[in-house]
Amino acid sequence: MPLAMNREVFITAALTGSGATQDRSPNVPRSPRAIAEAAIDAARAGAAVVHAHVRDPETGAPSRDPALYREVTERIRASEVDVVLNLTAGMGGDLVFGPPEAPLPLNAAQTDMIGASARLAHVAACLPEICTLDCGTMNFAEADYVMTNTPGMLRAMGAEITALGVRPEIEAFDTGHLWFAKELVREGVLDAPALVQLCMGVPWGAPNDLNTFLAMVNAIPEGWHWSAFSLGRDQMAYVAASVLAGGNVRVGLEDNLYLDRGVLATNAQLVDRAVGIIERMGARVIGPEDVRARLGLVKRAPVAA
Amino acid sequence: MPLAMNREVFITAALTGSGATQDRSPNVPRSPRAIAEAAIDAARAGAAVVHAHVRDPETGAPSRDPALYREVTERIRASEVDVVLNLTAGMGGDLVFGPPEAPLPLNAAQTDMIGASARLAHVAACLPEICTLDCGTMNFAEADYVMTNTPGMLRAMGAEITALGVRPEIEAFDTGHLWFAKELVREGVLDAPALVQLCMGVPWGAPNDLNTFLAMVNAIPEGWHWSAFSLGRDQMAYVAASVLAGGNVRVGLEDNLYLDRGVLATNAQLVDRAVGIIERMGARVIGPEDVRARLGLVKRAPVAA
Amino acid sequence: MPLAMNREVFITAALTGSGATQDRSPNVPRSPRAIAEAAIDAARAGAAVVHAHVRDPETGAPSRDPALYREVTERIRASEVDVVLNLTAGMGGDLVFGPPEAPLPLNAAQTDMIGASARLAHVAACLPEICTLDCGTMNFAEADYVMTNTPGMLRAMGAEITALGVRPEIEAFDTGHLWFAKELVREGVLDAPALVQLCMGVPWGAPNDLNTFLAMVNAIPEGWHWSAFSLGRDQMAYVAASVLAGGNVRVGLEDNLYLDRGVLATNAQLVDRAVGIIERMGARVIGPEDVRARLGLVKRAPVAA
Amino acid sequence: MPLAMNREVFITAALTGSGATQDRSPNVPRSPRAIAEAAIDAARAGAAVVHAHVRDPETGAPSRDPALYREVTERIRASEVDVVLNLTAGMGGDLVFGPPEAPLPLNAAQTDMIGASARLAHVAACLPEICTLDCGTMNFAEADYVMTNTPGMLRAMGAEITALGVRPEIEAFDTGHLWFAKELVREGVLDAPALVQLCMGVPWGAPNDLNTFLAMVNAIPEGWHWSAFSLGRDQMAYVAASVLAGGNVRVGLEDNLYLDRGVLATNAQLVDRAVGIIERMGARVIGPEDVRARLGLVKRAPVAA
Ligand SMILES: [Zn+2]
Ligand SMILES: [Zn+2]
Ligand SMILES: [Zn+2]
Ligand SMILES: [Zn+2]
Repeated sequence: MPLAMNREVFITAALTGSGATQDRSPNVPRSPRAIAEAAIDAARAGAAVVHAHVRDPETGAPSRDPALYREVTERIRASEVDVVLNLTAGMGGDLVFGPPEAPLPLNAAQTDMIGASARLAHVAACLPEICTLDCGTMNFAEADYVMTNTPGMLRAMGAEITALGVRPEIEAFDTGHLWFAKELVREGVLDAPALVQLCMGVPWGAPNDLNTFLAMVNAIPEGWHWSAFSLGRDQMAYVAASVLAGGNVRVGLEDNLYLDRGVLATNAQLVDRAVGIIERMGARVIGPEDVRARLGLVKRAPVAA
Repeated sequence: MPLAMNREVFITAALTGSGATQDRSPNVPRSPRAIAEAAIDAARAGAAVVHAHVRDPETGAPSRDPALYREVTERIRASEVDVVLNLTAGMGGDLVFGPPEAPLPLNAAQTDMIGASARLAHVAACLPEICTLDCGTMNFAEADYVMTNTPGMLRAMGAEITALGVRPEIEAFDTGHLWFAKELVREGVLDAPALVQLCMGVPWGAPNDLNTFLAMVNAIPEGWHWSAFSLGRDQMAYVAASVLAGGNVRVGLEDNLYLDRGVLATNAQLVDRAVGIIERMGARVIGPEDVRARLGLVKRAPVAA
Repeated sequence: MPLAMNREVFITAALTGSGATQDRSPNVPRSPRAIAEAAIDAARAGAAVVHAHVRDPETGAPSRDPALYREVTERIRASEVDVVLNLTAGMGGDLVFGPPEAPLPLNAAQTDMIGASARLAHVAACLPEICTLDCGTMNFAEADYVMTNTPGMLRAMGAEITALGVRPEIEAFDTGHLWFAKELVREGVLDAPALVQLCMGVPWGAPNDLNTFLAMVNAIPEGWHWSAFSLGRDQMAYVAASVLAGGNVRVGLEDNLYLDRGVLATNAQLVDRAVGIIERMGARVIGPEDVRARLGLVKRAPVAA
Repeated sequence: MPLAMNREVFITAALTGSGATQDRSPNVPRSPRAIAEAAIDAARAGAAVVHAHVRDPETGAPSRDPALYREVTERIRASEVDVVLNLTAGMGGDLVFGPPEAPLPLNAAQTDMIGASARLAHVAACLPEICTLDCGTMNFAEADYVMTNTPGMLRAMGAEITALGVRPEIEAFDTGHLWFAKELVREGVLDAPALVQLCMGVPWGAPNDLNTFLAMVNAIPEGWHWSAFSLGRDQMAYVAASVLAGGNVRVGLEDNLYLDRGVLATNAQLVDRAVGIIERMGARVIGPEDVRARLGLVKRAPVAA
């Protein structure tokens, strides 16, 4: 099937992430209040979806405290600005080894590896429209770290997300992750058409090479919904790439801290710049209601505490 | 750069592997003697390179006993049939978790995770022309298993292989593995031009989809040497794919047990069938001396025990 | 959509062509009797379809005499060997210019440019299951020659072929020809799903570069039937390429005269070699009845003379 | 070779073209004065190169009168705004046939087919830094028209352009045109590294499908300079596509009349919008002196009349 440009594009703002970026930019939101404000600003700038992690409000360190997710959720839901909420379920799969001559025992201080239900506790509590599912295991740009999501873990998490009525967004960091997503659909763990995020340029997953990107796009089943982003300085280039290839886009401080060389960005500025590219390319930016209709999402209040 | 067909192709026979295949085909060689005989038969059938793992001679279970590697090496070296020896360095990176609700502690009985030097002990002893380097971490088609090769481990192993004067063959199971291989060359851990094996169709790495395969081929730096294979029933199809895209080929019982549907193969039969395809496509199958000249390999005797 | 290998492949034998090849190989059939015999031999070797032009029986020069086509058709139809008949409709679109400083007037001696109905007279008479439709205008490897099929001519010929109940096989020599084929279907001139032949490596159409080939394959609409070939020495390589990418194959003396370097082939030998590749790749070669069922073809007798 | 984004991009403004667009937008410049003014405005907006045809100042009909080219050239050269001049050499290859049932004789009133030297008379007189060379023959979106540039004509024109010290810009409307460009370089008719314009979405050449575009990009020899554009409403989308794939960009009224749906553009507005995309993607727009340095161009005065 030939590829066709997407003329009705939604933007996801990835607000804060789990990386150690909080000390590299004062714009990375730390507290639930700051994250919710960033979400609202991003929505005002044109994001239909906000993707959030939470952080320790004091240190900025990534956290998976459900109370923090609840506060973020409630603040966003209480706002007058409508936006689709997408919470990460990526945390709790962090494995850190000892040095190369003695990889075991694991580095217990840095390892954070928990069960499927625990990884989804905040999703069950907050009932966001979307939560992510990192669809594989791989190295990152750190010597002894592995992002760990085994097939068994993904089947368990996928089933639980589906049962919660939350839409899983499959994070495909390489071609094999997309292959396994299709397997999850084949097995009935995930529903079709699925929703995929192609994560390009995350070392050491798929590079943001255009041939690789197109191979991944061509491998997406007919009718699935998808978006893409590139980590780092090609974030805006991949806004264009994704629209060209028929997809939606993700930008934000989780993936890139800079507006221009040496100029730190805010989330809203990155969304605004993406809008500037998308509209100049001749496409239209759509809002949260259009996204809910297209993806079959239901906006719900968090479960009473 | 456009792709050009390879008209002088070398074949690697992957003789026995580390999978639990020994009980699924009586043709999977178990003992060092049987592995060496399979190597010699494969070479006679047209393989310029043999890639070997070792197994417990009694049970057929994968093993990393250096004495078994030494026996395989000596038997092959003592044969009148010349062939390039390629030993796996893939073992010792097996991580098995507990069930999804309790991934830690690790399943100690099944986990086999050792240090870089230990993983290369048999390479240091046997001094094969080539040893493999599995260039990343990923899920396999097993629920709780992860093939684990962290960046730190790969830097350590890569440096040690280079120091031994052995040629590392980079096993790229997905696009990110190839990206990291380029990083290892950039860092000086590996020499350029490197030697790459594109491993297609290994769940859950890169699928053997042709678009994905070409994206990987296009991402190989100019001047590098490469080969490719597909796991399973498309093994012979990827003989053709690799030659078409400019590469060399790998076949053998490590990757596929069948000659035809329901017909168990021997390694030599698989090599013979690959020769049948390659020659009918208008290319020539080259031998071990041509491979040594092209890749700059030195044939050496094992270190005295 | 990802690409999947074709496991049930039909072979078209392109028996004689319109090129000046008759003096370069004694195996290029000239007379209707010789062409029919080549067809029958090719079918016995495994071709489900034979694609024929006709030639002057004495000189071997390409001809478009309907009587010659009729004789070829009747001889093949009368044979005990069943095969799908595919007649060219490519002749009568030959434009030859004067030299670069005076391109006009046309070189009248070499130009052969006739009307749509005249180009199809033999098709109307012979009622083959399939006839070709060269879906564009382009240069060939001759200084002042243009293969000419304007949009208007293609609309007229396409409509007439459809009205005759003959299946048009769209010859796409470059990506724009495939685009126009889709336009003809969109306009209702041709029926969907259409039948396409990707003609690779014909100078100066699409080169037989694998990236280009895959781009063309990816551009074929879902559900269409297709085959591919490469001109010249990569004929057998593209047997493999087409099967890998999900298509059917064409071989024969129209496209390539050699079995091996310096060894002239017969049509049957080329078919036999293609069968050898296809079957070794793990696919099955299907026959004329399977092709008729798949493509919805009706075998008919020629119109009474 | 992997593709890398171009971070230093030049823009060519295609000001007026040869199509019958003059009546569809009042912004299509007609007179030499208007064309030169459009050139200067485009340069001010960020174009490093202006690509010009000429038109009858009264009717707006495309013309190939050398006096008109000379006036355009002198006006641009006399301006205080520096810009690289690129003149078309595409005219004089227009063939129009009779209707499908009687394609010959040619439609003499509409056919404009002249010799190689005549097609380059204005280039010899004006000595622009660049002139185009339409590198093939193909159908357009008109029933009986063929854009005609035979191999013999292209060899003659290419040799003459090279002899004039003018840089030929190869217009590749499909993959086969790029293949023939490489043949012209191989034959020594054109110098390497050559300069190529990938012309996407011109019916019935290569569609602006992204897979097709990347196949063409991958087929460009290492070190060549290239740019790309898409006809029609995807003009701005292909600004992004070209930058992503490593190329330069072309926009302007020759290829697209609209700024937005229903909003007629000026050349300068289209250049400005392209700048807006390129800079937001993180690349820099370079000027005429940088282009001359990169392409080895020499700015010269026209030959004295
Ligand atoms: Zn995230
Ligand atoms: Zn192995
Ligand atoms: Zn033919
Ligand atoms: Zn032009």
